[in-house]
Amino acid sequence: MGLIVQKFGGTSVGNIERIKNVAKRIYKYYKEGHKIVVVVSAMGDTTDELISMAEEITKNPSPREMDVLLSSGERISSALLTMALHELGIPAISLSGRQAGIYTNSIHTKAQITCIKPERILKEISLGKVVVVAGFQGYDLDNNNITTLGRGGSDATAVALAYALKADICEIYTDVEGIFTADPRIVPSARKLDYISYEEMLELAGQGAQVMQLRAMDLAATYKVPIIVRSSFNENSGTFIGEVEKMETRRKITGIAHNKNIAKITVLGVPDKPGIAYKIFAPLGNAAINVDDIVQNVSKDGITDLSFTVPEKELSNALKIVKEIIPQIDAKDVLYDDQIGKVSIIGWGMQGTPGIAAKMFGILAENGINIEMITTSEIKITCIIRRDLVEKAVQALHDGFKLGEE
Amino acid sequence: MGLIVQKFGGTSVGNIERIKNVAKRIYKYYKEGHKIVVVVSAMGDTTDELISMAEEITKNPSPREMDVLLSSGERISSALLTMALHELGIPAISLSGRQAGIYTNSIHTKAQITCIKPERILKEISLGKVVVVAGFQGYDLDNNNITTLGRGGSDATAVALAYALKADICEIYTDVEGIFTADPRIVPSARKLDYISYEEMLELAGQGAQVMQLRAMDLAATYKVPIIVRSSFNENSGTFIGEVEKMETRRKITGIAHNKNIAKITVLGVPDKPGIAYKIFAPLGNAAINVDDIVQNVSKDGITDLSFTVPEKELSNALKIVKEIIPQIDAKDVLYDDQIGKVSIIGWGMQGTPGIAAKMFGILAENGINIEMITTSEIKITCIIRRDLVEKAVQALHDGFKLGEE
Repeated sequence: MGLIVQKFGGTSVGNIERIKNVAKRIYKYYKEGHKIVVVVSAMGDTTDELISMAEEITKNPSPREMDVLLSSGERISSALLTMALHELGIPAISLSGRQAGIYTNSIHTKAQITCIKPERILKEISLGKVVVVAGFQGYDLDNNNITTLGRGGSDATAVALAYALKADICEIYTDVEGIFTADPRIVPSARKLDYISYEEMLELAGQGAQVMQLRAMDLAATYKVPIIVRSSFNENSGTFIGEVEKMETRRKITGIAHNKNIAKITVLGVPDKPGIAYKIFAPLGNAAINVDDIVQNVSKDGITDLSFTVPEKELSNALKIVKEIIPQIDAKDVLYDDQIGKVSIIGWGMQGTPGIAAKMFGILAENGINIEMITTSEIKITCIIRRDLVEKAVQALHDGFKLGEE
Repeated sequence: MGLIVQKFGGTSVGNIERIKNVAKRIYKYYKEGHKIVVVVSAMGDTTDELISMAEEITKNPSPREMDVLLSSGERISSALLTMALHELGIPAISLSGRQAGIYTNSIHTKAQITCIKPERILKEISLGKVVVVAGFQGYDLDNNNITTLGRGGSDATAVALAYALKADICEIYTDVEGIFTADPRIVPSARKLDYISYEEMLELAGQGAQVMQLRAMDLAATYKVPIIVRSSFNENSGTFIGEVEKMETRRKITGIAHNKNIAKITVLGVPDKPGIAYKIFAPLGNAAINVDDIVQNVSKDGITDLSFTVPEKELSNALKIVKEIIPQIDAKDVLYDDQIGKVSIIGWGMQGTPGIAAKMFGILAENGINIEMITTSEIKITCIIRRDLVEKAVQALHDGFKLGEE
C-alpha cells in the first residue's frame, strides 16, 4: 500500500466508455488500499476542437484567453471521471490546477510550474478520497490568471505532483505499451524496453519519442521520481523509468530516436568572441523557442559559422529574431534548411565502449545516407540528415545495432 | 456614457458566427465611450451536451462535480467572445465567476449569490478593458469549490453585477424581442410591451414566462436594477423593466402568463393548528423544491385541506417528503394531480379596478373551462385548470381583456 499518481492521457479518456474503464482500473488499486491521485488530460480531440474554434475567430488569439479556453477541457474530463468513480462506490473529488495547488509563472500557454502547495490534495486524501486533478493547467498567483503548461503538460502535472506528494510511483497511462527501441511504426522489429534510465529517456523524448513529454521527463530525472509508462488498454507491465544504477544490465545502445519536424538555421560569418552565442540564443529563449542541437566548428581568422535546429513550426519566428540580431553581432548572413531531419542512437553503455560512433557513421554510409551535421552527448550521438532519409536511417541503425534482439 | 452590463444567452452565442456578431454589437457601445461588462452563457447546446455525458456515466451525479463540469461551458464562451473582441481591436479580458468576485453559498447546482467583490472587474475596467464574465457560476469560499447558480443563472449574474457595479442599465440579450402580453406561440396577436414593472415581470416570470429567470427578476426588483430585455438578432428596442411609478400609464392588465409544467399536491385532514404549514413547507424548502401556489381554505371542526403546486419534475421528490411528514402532523392523507396547469392575469392596474377577477372567471366559464383552485396576489389572479385547457384559456383571456390592442 502506498501513494500512487496515475496519469491518463486524452486517448485513455477519449469517450464515456473509456472513462468508465479508467474508473474500473483505478478501482482495483483503490481496493488494494492504495492512496491514489489521478491526473487527466482532456478527452480525445477536445483540445483540438477548442483550438479550431479559436482559430475561426482569430489568427492570433491572446495566450491568456487560450489558457482560459483550453483549461476547460481537463476540467470536464476530471469531473466526468470523478462521477464514474462515484458510480463504482469510490469516494472521489475533482480539483482544478489551482485547487490542487499547482502554481506557475505567467508565461501563458507554456507556463512553468514554480511551486506546488498540495494541502487541499492531502486533506482530501486524508478523508479517504481518490483525488482527480485536471492536468495541463496551473495558476499564476501574481496576476490571478489561469495558465496552461503547454501541450502534453499533463505529464508534467503528474510528475510534479508525484514529487510534491512523495508518491511511491508515478504511472503514465497512454496508448502505447511503453518505450521501444525505435518507433514501431517505422521499425516493425522494435522491442519494448522493460526499463530505461532517466537520462536515456530524456534523450529519447527530446528526439521526438512522443510517449512522454520532455519537460515531464526532465522533472522526473531531476527529482528522481520513479515512473512507469504503460498502456491504459491492457494489463501489460510497461516500461519502468528510473535511476541508472538500479538497472540490472548495461546495454551499449538502448534505442534509436528520430525527428522529422525540425529545421536548421545557420548563422554565417560570426566573429568568434565571448558572448556572441549568448546574444543569439538569449532572445530565442525569451521567445520560448526550443533550440535543440547547436553546432559550432573551429573558427578560421576569428570567424566561424554557427548552426542550430528548431522545431519546424517555429522556424519563421526564429528566423525573424535571428535576422534582427545579425547587425548587432556583425555576422554575415543567415541560411535555413527546412528539409532536414535527425536520427540519434542513445545508450548509457556507449560511454565505456569505443567505436560506437564510428559504427553509426559506417551504417549510415553503407546505406548511402549523407551526414550533414553531428552532435554528441555522453549517451547520445545525433546525425542531421535529409528528412526523406530519416526512416531508412532508423531502420538501418536498429538492424545494425541488433536492437530487436534481447 | 455610462457603465452597461450586457448579458448574452446561449442562443446569442450559439456558434462562432454569432459570437462574432455579439462582438460587433459590443463594439458599437464601446466606440460610444461606454464602460462595458459582458456576461455570457454557454454556447447553444453545450450545457445539455455536458449533462448528457454525465447521464451516460451515472443517474445520480454528484452536484459538486456537476458544477465543475457545467461551469466549463461559460468559461469557453467567455474566452471565445474575448478573442472576438480582441480581433476587433477592443481591449478585453475574460473572468471566471470566482475571478469576477461572485461568491455563493454551498448549495451546488442551485447556489445563491451571497456577495460580490468586484475589485478585479473594476481594475480591468479602469485599464480600459471590456470585461467578459462567465455567467451562471460562482465560488463557495468556505469550501473552496466552484458552484453554479442553476439553469438560467447567467441572468442572475448580470443583475447582481449591475447592482454591485452601480451600472446605468442591465441589458438582457435573448432570442425574443422582449416581454409580450402572452406567449406569442399560443396567442398570435400577443403584443410586445415597451415597459413593465418589476412586480408584473416577477409574476410573469414566476408563471413560466421564459424570457428572464425568476431569481434574476427578484434580484432586479429588490435592488431596483433597471433592465432592458431585447433581441440579440436585431436592433429593436425591447422591453424596459423598471419601477412602477416611472411608468407613463397604468394598464389594468399587462399580460397573461401560463404554466403547463406543474403538479398539485393536496394534504387532506390537516389539524388547523399554528406551525403546521411550517412543518410541511420547511422540509420542502430545505430540499430546494419550489413550492408555488398555496391554497388553504377555512377549516371545519378544526380540520382543513391544504393544496400547493410544485414543478412537475419535482413532484415525486415533493411527495416523498410530504408522506414522511404526514404522521408527524396527524394529517389524513396525501393526493396528487399531475394533469393540471395554470393561467394568470397580471397587472398593476387591477388593484384599483373592481370586477377584474369576476371578468376573468366569466371568460373562463364562457369557454367551458372549470376552475379547480384560485389564488390571488395584489397584481395577479391565478386559476388552476386542466392542463389540456391551458392554451385555450390563455387565448380566451387575451381576447377578452383586449390585450392585443394598444
